[in-house]
Amino acid sequence: MGKISLELIKEIAQSSSTRIVLLVIDGLGGLPNPQTGKTELETARTPNLDKLATQGICGLIDLVSRGITPGSGPGHLALFGYDPVSYKIGRGVLEAMGIDFDLQQEDVAARGNFCTVDETGLVTDRRAGRISTEKGTQLCQLLNGLVIAGVKLFVRPVREHRFIVVFRGAGLSADISDSDPQQVGVAPKVTAALRLEASRMADIANEFISQAGRTLAEHHPTNMVLLRGFSQHPQLPTMGEIYKLQPAAIAAYPMYRGIAKLVGMNVLETGTTIEDEFLTLKQNYTDYDFFFLHIKQADAAGEDGDFARKVSIIEHIDNALSELINMEPDVIVVTGDHSTPALLKGHSWHPVPILLHSKWCRPDRVKEFSESACISGGLGRFPATQIMPLAMANALKLTKFGA
Amino acid sequence: MGKISLELIKEIAQSSSTRIVLLVIDGLGGLPNPQTGKTELETARTPNLDKLATQGICGLIDLVSRGITPGSGPGHLALFGYDPVSYKIGRGVLEAMGIDFDLQQEDVAARGNFCTVDETGLVTDRRAGRISTEKGTQLCQLLNGLVIAGVKLFVRPVREHRFIVVFRGAGLSADISDSDPQQVGVAPKVTAALRLEASRMADIANEFISQAGRTLAEHHPTNMVLLRGFSQHPQLPTMGEIYKLQPAAIAAYPMYRGIAKLVGMNVLETGTTIEDEFLTLKQNYTDYDFFFLHIKQADAAGEDGDFARKVSIIEHIDNALSELINMEPDVIVVTGDHSTPALLKGHSWHPVPILLHSKWCRPDRVKEFSESACISGGLGRFPATQIMPLAMANALKLTKFGA
Repeated sequence: MGKISLELIKEIAQSSSTRIVLLVIDGLGGLPNPQTGKTELETARTPNLDKLATQGICGLIDLVSRGITPGSGPGHLALFGYDPVSYKIGRGVLEAMGIDFDLQQEDVAARGNFCTVDETGLVTDRRAGRISTEKGTQLCQLLNGLVIAGVKLFVRPVREHRFIVVFRGAGLSADISDSDPQQVGVAPKVTAALRLEASRMADIANEFISQAGRTLAEHHPTNMVLLRGFSQHPQLPTMGEIYKLQPAAIAAYPMYRGIAKLVGMNVLETGTTIEDEFLTLKQNYTDYDFFFLHIKQADAAGEDGDFARKVSIIEHIDNALSELINMEPDVIVVTGDHSTPALLKGHSWHPVPILLHSKWCRPDRVKEFSESACISGGLGRFPATQIMPLAMANALKLTKFGA
Repeated sequence: MGKISLELIKEIAQSSSTRIVLLVIDGLGGLPNPQTGKTELETARTPNLDKLATQGICGLIDLVSRGITPGSGPGHLALFGYDPVSYKIGRGVLEAMGIDFDLQQEDVAARGNFCTVDETGLVTDRRAGRISTEKGTQLCQLLNGLVIAGVKLFVRPVREHRFIVVFRGAGLSADISDSDPQQVGVAPKVTAALRLEASRMADIANEFISQAGRTLAEHHPTNMVLLRGFSQHPQLPTMGEIYKLQPAAIAAYPMYRGIAKLVGMNVLETGTTIEDEFLTLKQNYTDYDFFFLHIKQADAAGEDGDFARKVSIIEHIDNALSELINMEPDVIVVTGDHSTPALLKGHSWHPVPILLHSKWCRPDRVKEFSESACISGGLGRFPATQIMPLAMANALKLTKFGA
């Protein structure tokens, strides 16, 4: 089948008064608990999700492709309809977005770690013992004062040992290699240009790293930095341009607000709890026709390997769903940006359950929202990039293709 | 997965004595009646289709892609194996096909509307009050007499306010913009060349429009014309070339005969009823090895929002199928070119049930031909462009790919 481009969608998209809510439960998919044979989602008591599944249509999505474990960037780009293989967001940009840094077009951003090196310069701890955010913030202030000719530097704390550095100057290229060796017992790497045009940027990055090393020398265990994911603003077409939507994002975690901003969503102020996020949705419900509601906690529980906590978070979300259901959006989509099985303590390649609820969805026979049940759903198994066209169609926001 | 091109199919296709019948029930797919929870197809009593489904293999097809509602052109191109995103048929050509106009290779065809403009030239009604076909036919005769240097003009009525104009002359290009502004309260647009080579065609079209305006000046409310969809014969590779088939088309409606002609089928004379079409099949059965049998009535009932009539037409078709089954074609495929749920009164994006019956099909467990049952069919959910390779394979008309 010919690939449906964003240009094609743009041609047939039309604005209307209908409303779509895309609820993303981060890391939703799981693996069965060996004791019970049931996944986190199958273990959770979820009357609201099951009701939506019964009235709606279900399936399984692949975010990138079978067997490929998506990072948060590709996962979300796919959910928003952008082919995650063609459109890439670098780690540096993603982290910069995550702390609301106002990234300019030519800025080069990198993700940094404060780390520990021994007296011979070999890395002994890539995270410097996960220092406090306060400590990280102080160290960033030190590095923010460094001076490199021809560029303006911004060093900003993210959380604990994590920070970003942004290099601002004309004609910078982000095509340079990481200094982070991704292992201990070796020295930080010297960054290198991956294209000829990037050699100046590689020099600048290496100069920053060596200045940082000198500045931090007396600050053991945070006596060095590791940089990775040098990248620039990806200049994506916006969801407003493509889908003719007025999209809003509700996300407690900065990184997801950042991705939403990259695709042109209005990022709403919200609190840190699941209830806060649903309340924000309710308060802004009439002002937008598309909501991306992101809930991080399920992924965090999965990453911690805490099966029971992930179950309880899913039940918590199911409970909060009542209010959303009462608002009667024309289209509700519930899915995740990847699986995070507690048993694997990390993102995984397993496809993610999806349900779509709308007046026009042609219900299937699935009566519960779970990995197993979704296998026989009417949506089948499909690429996540097709979710947006489907949601748009069900909201009657797409006209016919061709005469 | 790598895309299978028509070139690849051409390499492995081989002629044989087996016979394929592709029965296209236009607008076949539906949505459940809220009273019963059953779609049109699920409501209809269809013993023959159910028998074919039981003995055969079922699935669901997407004509273009999930969420995309296909027009008749893209829907049929996909059924015949042509990627509907790469191969396009312009509106002007489609309408010309629809009235059996004998379009030549270099002709440029456009769809026209008789419309109403006020004394300042602004469009007040894009359809001139939907005049009668008789009135439209008279006006077309007036315009058909216009003279433009260097081209031959054909103005032919379609229905009501709709007509086509065909410009015949050497070296014409169809790449010009519409004059139809698609809204009232503005003046008709001046058509413009979209490529340098098309500037002569834009001049010719504008000259036609201004002559038409002068000729129609005293014919209020039909005092102007709007043109759109300038297009030329798409020059598709024929089904004979690709599949090494002798294909015949049986279709009561001109537009489908036209599309069949574009892909090189022999279009058989037939009547207007379902029985007429099946009789034509029987009479010509030994002369071809591929039949495209198109039944329009189900779509028309869906477009009218007439659930009961669509049910009854499906039952009518099921009844007529006995005779086809008795002819024992090697491969029978039954599907549609898109869904037309009576509840939506128009084409929709929902996938279309398909059944394939052949000695070699590896039957699944599906025992009824319906949207719900086809979800768990052995063919799965797949792009309609793969139907022809599947049908060819089941007719043992494809050799092995690669050594």
